[in-house]
Amino acid sequence: MGKMMLEKTKKLFRIRNSTVREMLAEALGTFILMVFGLSSVAQVVLGKGSSGHYLSINMAFGIGATLGVYAAGGISGAHLNAAITITQCVLGKISWTTLAAYIIGQFLGSFMAAATVFALYYDAIYDYTKGNLTVSGPTATAMIFSTYPAPNVSLQGAFFTEFTATVMLILGNMVIHDEKNNAAIKGAQPMLTGMLVLGIGLGMGLNTGYAINPSRDLPPRIFTAIAGWGTAVFTAEHSWWWVPVAAPILGCLFGVFIYKLCIDFHNHPVHENEHEKEQAGMETSRL
Amino acid sequence: MGKMMLEKTKKLFRIRNSTVREMLAEALGTFILMVFGLSSVAQVVLGKGSSGHYLSINMAFGIGATLGVYAAGGISGAHLNAAITITQCVLGKISWTTLAAYIIGQFLGSFMAAATVFALYYDAIYDYTKGNLTVSGPTATAMIFSTYPAPNVSLQGAFFTEFTATVMLILGNMVIHDEKNNAAIKGAQPMLTGMLVLGIGLGMGLNTGYAINPSRDLPPRIFTAIAGWGTAVFTAEHSWWWVPVAAPILGCLFGVFIYKLCIDFHNHPVHENEHEKEQAGMETSRL
Amino acid sequence: MGKMMLEKTKKLFRIRNSTVREMLAEALGTFILMVFGLSSVAQVVLGKGSSGHYLSINMAFGIGATLGVYAAGGISGAHLNAAITITQCVLGKISWTTLAAYIIGQFLGSFMAAATVFALYYDAIYDYTKGNLTVSGPTATAMIFSTYPAPNVSLQGAFFTEFTATVMLILGNMVIHDEKNNAAIKGAQPMLTGMLVLGIGLGMGLNTGYAINPSRDLPPRIFTAIAGWGTAVFTAEHSWWWVPVAAPILGCLFGVFIYKLCIDFHNHPVHENEHEKEQAGMETSRL
Amino acid sequence: MGKMMLEKTKKLFRIRNSTVREMLAEALGTFILMVFGLSSVAQVVLGKGSSGHYLSINMAFGIGATLGVYAAGGISGAHLNAAITITQCVLGKISWTTLAAYIIGQFLGSFMAAATVFALYYDAIYDYTKGNLTVSGPTATAMIFSTYPAPNVSLQGAFFTEFTATVMLILGNMVIHDEKNNAAIKGAQPMLTGMLVLGIGLGMGLNTGYAINPSRDLPPRIFTAIAGWGTAVFTAEHSWWWVPVAAPILGCLFGVFIYKLCIDFHNHPVHENEHEKEQAGMETSRL
Repeated sequence: MGKMMLEKTKKLFRIRNSTVREMLAEALGTFILMVFGLSSVAQVVLGKGSSGHYLSINMAFGIGATLGVYAAGGISGAHLNAAITITQCVLGKISWTTLAAYIIGQFLGSFMAAATVFALYYDAIYDYTKGNLTVSGPTATAMIFSTYPAPNVSLQGAFFTEFTATVMLILGNMVIHDEKNNAAIKGAQPMLTGMLVLGIGLGMGLNTGYAINPSRDLPPRIFTAIAGWGTAVFTAEHSWWWVPVAAPILGCLFGVFIYKLCIDFHNHPVHENEHEKEQAGMETSRL
Repeated sequence: MGKMMLEKTKKLFRIRNSTVREMLAEALGTFILMVFGLSSVAQVVLGKGSSGHYLSINMAFGIGATLGVYAAGGISGAHLNAAITITQCVLGKISWTTLAAYIIGQFLGSFMAAATVFALYYDAIYDYTKGNLTVSGPTATAMIFSTYPAPNVSLQGAFFTEFTATVMLILGNMVIHDEKNNAAIKGAQPMLTGMLVLGIGLGMGLNTGYAINPSRDLPPRIFTAIAGWGTAVFTAEHSWWWVPVAAPILGCLFGVFIYKLCIDFHNHPVHENEHEKEQAGMETSRL
Repeated sequence: MGKMMLEKTKKLFRIRNSTVREMLAEALGTFILMVFGLSSVAQVVLGKGSSGHYLSINMAFGIGATLGVYAAGGISGAHLNAAITITQCVLGKISWTTLAAYIIGQFLGSFMAAATVFALYYDAIYDYTKGNLTVSGPTATAMIFSTYPAPNVSLQGAFFTEFTATVMLILGNMVIHDEKNNAAIKGAQPMLTGMLVLGIGLGMGLNTGYAINPSRDLPPRIFTAIAGWGTAVFTAEHSWWWVPVAAPILGCLFGVFIYKLCIDFHNHPVHENEHEKEQAGMETSRL
Repeated sequence: MGKMMLEKTKKLFRIRNSTVREMLAEALGTFILMVFGLSSVAQVVLGKGSSGHYLSINMAFGIGATLGVYAAGGISGAHLNAAITITQCVLGKISWTTLAAYIIGQFLGSFMAAATVFALYYDAIYDYTKGNLTVSGPTATAMIFSTYPAPNVSLQGAFFTEFTATVMLILGNMVIHDEKNNAAIKGAQPMLTGMLVLGIGLGMGLNTGYAINPSRDLPPRIFTAIAGWGTAVFTAEHSWWWVPVAAPILGCLFGVFIYKLCIDFHNHPVHENEHEKEQAGMETSRL
């Protein structure tokens, strides 16, 4: 009976349009990335240190990235990051329609993840804040969902941090996937993407909380604006919200350029792997 | 001499019935998962923080899951979780007899693991509790064996947490194993299952201790009821014991549906891998 | 010039006797395991918590095991543990001569590692102890080298802990390497051995410090007896020193039996892999 | 448009000289290693323990090593360490020209990384030090960039520590890559290099901060001398700066000798892998 129902449902829901499928894959992949990531911030903040430390957050975003890339990698190439999608478009690798579909998918997934984590920790957030949802102060909780810079960091410093951290993200990403160079073993590449994200959190998170991804930061910020934290989430810290949107895009473009300059321009294409690549579908780092 | 004895013992104990073999594999796999997991909770609780933190528990359940899946994966597909077994049955992938055999195996393994960890830490538990085995209070030890919700979480909140965490478990699990999509490298998939379990603990453990598995929670609870903690293990926290049994089953079904809706319904079957699959025996995520 | 010297040295030192080569491989592998492991204990004890926690020790022994198995795996099968070597001999897989060579190699490597770590931390040990090398007391340092049980654990409890932890070590080890079942990917198996050792430390270390290996515990104990800690290292804790020697041997035998009973007896041999195995040389878990 | 620009840029910047390409690869690989590593030290020091512990630093250097080796592995063999480059030259495996190119590349990358991390944490460093850049004292920050020994360690002790830790680095490195023995799976070897570096930090970092690499230590020290810390970075701790330059070179040579003595001299060459090796380009451990 279960099998028959499944077959019927499949016929009902099956989508053959590849752009819609890519949008769905980006949505699911970003959803997975964000649920793991945001819930770990919630656990550290609301658990008051008894159920995790900063390191837990670094690890959880890494694991979320790994699983998100496994989820979407076979269909959309698992960008999960609007900065990567925009860079691909600027480099002429994807069309404007695909750009729109990917970003819509990522934003949907990220927004849904913020809502899920809010529901998951609804009781604990109200217990912790006594219902007073704030961006700053001793029981601030907005940083569970989107990033805010440290108080001692200037806006230029914050911008440079997000820019540099994204450069490292892209360098690492290209390094892992470059089959003309020394790519990681196929099927384990998403694990290395996770390690990369972990590494960025270990060293480049102090100033800004390493958004390094507009799709990680903006949709949960919109969610908090709606869900009770109000417009303070946009005005806080000298209206810093646009930094984790703009800086990663520039960082991504610059990182691609650095990698090509140092490594890629000087390598020959790998002909013997071409066929294999096509079979395996798109992969993350086609930049 | 050793070799001859081994051959004789083999003839004596060899079982040819595949259902019994699957039951034994589920028992051993769940036993391994649970000994690693429960003993780490014991070490954190009884060591009073000197020999591990919450993170140790997250890691140990991950490592236990990895090794448990390696143990049972070749024979039973390593469900190690009654929610997965029941979902498989609902979807018509396994028969009622197999369902029963798997769950009996899992429960036996989990119960044996609780008994093993109790024996392992018998001295330390008596030293810590002065022989007073309780579910709550400053020297509570029942949570070494099964999960209890945090005091600030409502029953609905707890149910939703267990439901959602299991959805993520199943999404992650399908993502890792889906050979029509972007599966992890064979032989390394159990490592990713471990990372997935670690990730759930890092972010979704604060409310309820992430049971996400009836076979992880119920048999050790029964063990504690017998071993000296009494019926309080069932009545505690508004008789919450049924939540980590029921919520994971629903979460598992819902997770499968989400994955099929977003990814699987739209993919074609992989014919070239069919033969390889059969050789390799059943694998975890055939949902 | 460098190349020529290397060729000459090679001719001078080349050993063709395979038993001597296996002894050297076991010595190097155990040396690597033990330098990583013992130095991490030293760093935690002497650094007074500023340079690592209990978790560091668990991780370092895991990494040491991984690298030790890579070192010796191709030549001796990387036992690195007298309990495994003795079990292999009892099961008739290796001869008495090989048994002796392996154990001599392991003990030499382990003793050399203890001496290396002592030299490495000579300054820090004298600074920490003011030259008073003791087994107990506030500046005890003997536990940097070999294990001592927790004060609240009885001798039977300690024995059972070492026995059980070794059972789990062997179960995990067989599970990772069983090619008739669901073995880990070749070339990554030593990583899983490391995770296994990490997992045992996370949950089964509180009572006795998880020696689970006579070659890990006895040679450093002999070293400390000689190097200034005196005979107290043998008389301490009701002369417990024989427990981490005897209990792991029994645990290893019992673990093999459990695995064969639950999984191995019922599986058919894998004929298609036989040839490949022989090429790859011995592997760790041929029990 | 993006595509055309990329093609033009490629023609403009393409370098066909292989020595220059290797220099660039070493520069990028060392840059990646060092940005991850140094930034994690900065985050721990400047975050005052709220955003990471000693363990974060160990992990970040490991992840940096992994990604650096992926970056340069296909082109230069990813030495990323002048001690390895010098050892290769002494053994007659690379020419004097290559030696120079590699070390220039490594030093450039490492210096650039120090500058990048300084820029990244410029605000936080000034907030933490009130503009007073010192090598010692309560707000010392020079150790963010290069290593300084612990106060209780003698110069001989420091030298021996750097020597021994580099021996372990080289032993681990050869063990992972030796295809005549039990090499790690290709494409995952850089992960193991990362684990190795992590392991050294867990146990051999207390005395000297485990430089184990002249290219890791000297260029950032020069950077700090220029950027405001002054000549104290060279005179501090009895002018210890030359120890992490000299000791790793000797340790590297000694480690190679030990490995060849214990394992490599007695193994036959692997003929069937020769061709594969040449295709894959140089690899890390050709010592």
